Amino acid sequence: MIESLHSPHVGRVKALIGSKGAKERREQGLFVAEGVQCAREALTSSNGPQLKILYATENGLSKISELDFGSVEIVEVSDAVMKAMSDTVSPQGLISLCYKPESTFSELGATGRSTFIYLHEIQDPGNAGTILRTADAMGISAIITSPDSVDMFSPKVVRSTAGSLWHIPVYEGVAFDRVEKQFPGIKKFLLSSHARTSILDLTIPGDCIAIFGNEARGVSAADLGVEVTEVTIPMAGRAESLNLSAAASIVMFTLSSKVAG
Amino acid sequence: MIESLHSPHVGRVKALIGSKGAKERREQGLFVAEGVQCAREALTSSNGPQLKILYATENGLSKISELDFGSVEIVEVSDAVMKAMSDTVSPQGLISLCYKPESTFSELGATGRSTFIYLHEIQDPGNAGTILRTADAMGISAIITSPDSVDMFSPKVVRSTAGSLWHIPVYEGVAFDRVEKQFPGIKKFLLSSHARTSILDLTIPGDCIAIFGNEARGVSAADLGVEVTEVTIPMAGRAESLNLSAAASIVMFTLSSKVAG
Repeated sequence: MIESLHSPHVGRVKALIGSKGAKERREQGLFVAEGVQCAREALTSSNGPQLKILYATENGLSKISELDFGSVEIVEVSDAVMKAMSDTVSPQGLISLCYKPESTFSELGATGRSTFIYLHEIQDPGNAGTILRTADAMGISAIITSPDSVDMFSPKVVRSTAGSLWHIPVYEGVAFDRVEKQFPGIKKFLLSSHARTSILDLTIPGDCIAIFGNEARGVSAADLGVEVTEVTIPMAGRAESLNLSAAASIVMFTLSSKVAG
Repeated sequence: MIESLHSPHVGRVKALIGSKGAKERREQGLFVAEGVQCAREALTSSNGPQLKILYATENGLSKISELDFGSVEIVEVSDAVMKAMSDTVSPQGLISLCYKPESTFSELGATGRSTFIYLHEIQDPGNAGTILRTADAMGISAIITSPDSVDMFSPKVVRSTAGSLWHIPVYEGVAFDRVEKQFPGIKKFLLSSHARTSILDLTIPGDCIAIFGNEARGVSAADLGVEVTEVTIPMAGRAESLNLSAAASIVMFTLSSKVAG
C-alpha cells in the first residue's frame, strides 16, 4: 500500500489533473477518471478507454468487490494519498488511470442513420460532460469537437459524463471542413436563436450532424464555412436563451425520437 | 466611492454570499445577484426581486449606461472592493443587492393550463439554476421547492438562472401535501427511470405539476404520500440516466409543446 505523499504515483496523477493537465494528458496519452462509476466502466467495458492502473483505498475496493479485476494493475493507497490524488472534495476511493482512446476521425463511418454532434469551441467542462452523457442516452453515434474546445478528458468533463466516455466515441480537434469532406451529403443543422425553422419541423432524411457553438459567442454558418440549416427551439416563455447543455439535451432528444420514429 | 475593504457594505455582501449565507439571507430578507444580466433585470423588470442597492465599478456602470436608474441607490466601489464582494473569479463590476421576493404559496392560483415544477430535495445549485432558466424559457407557471432543497437565492443558483429569477415566481420550502391540498385535481407526474409511460404519451388535460427528485436518491410516490403518474424519457442509447437538469429540460420542453399544441 502506498502511504507516502511523495510517491511518484501521486505526482503522476496530480500532473494529469493539474493546471497543466491538458499538456500532460496529450503528451502521455493518459487521463484520470475518478469514482465508482468510471472504475466500473473501465473494468467491464470492452470498448472505450483502457485501464492502466486502478488506484484504490480499501473502502474504494469494497465498492466494486463483485467485479472481476482480471489482469488489471491495482495499487492500494491510503486515504491520505487518495485525497492528495483526488480532484474532488469527497473522494470515492477509486481513481482509474486510463489510456486516452486513439480515435482517428478518418476512420469514422456513417450508416445512413448516424447522428453526430459537433461542438464548436465549447469551453465549459460541465456543459461538455453533460452533453456527452445525454448523447450517450439518446443513442448519438459520436461526439466531434472543434480545435480550441474544452479537453474532453479533463477531470471535470470526465466527472460530468458519469461513465458515458466508455459508450460513445469522441473525436477531438476536428476542423469542420474535415467533417464536410468526410461526409459530403450529410444534413447539417445548427442551433440558433434567430432561426425560423423549429427543430420540431426538421426532417432527417439520413445521416445528420447537429452543431452547437460556444457558450457566449455561438457559431454561425460563416464561421464554419459551409451551408447549414439553422434551427431553433420553440419557446413559450421569456428567457432569452437556454443554457447550452439544456438546449443540446432538447435537440438530441428531438433528434433521437425523429430518427427512431 | 467606497475604496475601503473594511466598509460595512463589503461585510454585508460577503455575509450574504458566504458559508452562512442561507441563514443571513433568510434573516435579512436580502440576496445578492451578480453581473450585467441581473442588474439589467433588477433595473427594468416590474416583477421579481426589487433592487435595494446597486454596487458598481465605473466599468460596471458603463455596461448599463443606457438604462434609467430612477431612484435606485447606486454605490460606486473600487475594483478592489468589487473583487472582495464578488463570488466570481472575474467580476463584471455590478452587484445587485435585492429584496428576496415574498411569495406566499397559498396565493398561487392555477388557470386550468398552468404548469408547475416541483423540486424535491434538489441539492446542486447549477441544476437548480438551469432548471429555473429552462422553466422560464418554456413558459412554466411557477417553481416550487420542497423543504431541504438548495436555497434558490444562493449565489451559484442566481448565477445559473441568468436573470430568470425576475421572470418566474419561486415558492420555497413547500411540503408536497400543501401542493396536494391547494390543487386537489392537478395532474401530477414524476420522472422515474423505471416507469413504463413515456413522457411523449402523456396527456395533459388541465393544470399539471412535474416532480423531480434529488440527484442521487430521486423521489418516489411513497416519499410524497400521494398518487402520481410515473413517466420516463425514452432513451435510444445506453447511459443509465441523464443529468437532472438535462432530464428536466427535456420534460419541460415536451410539456410546453403539449400545452401549446
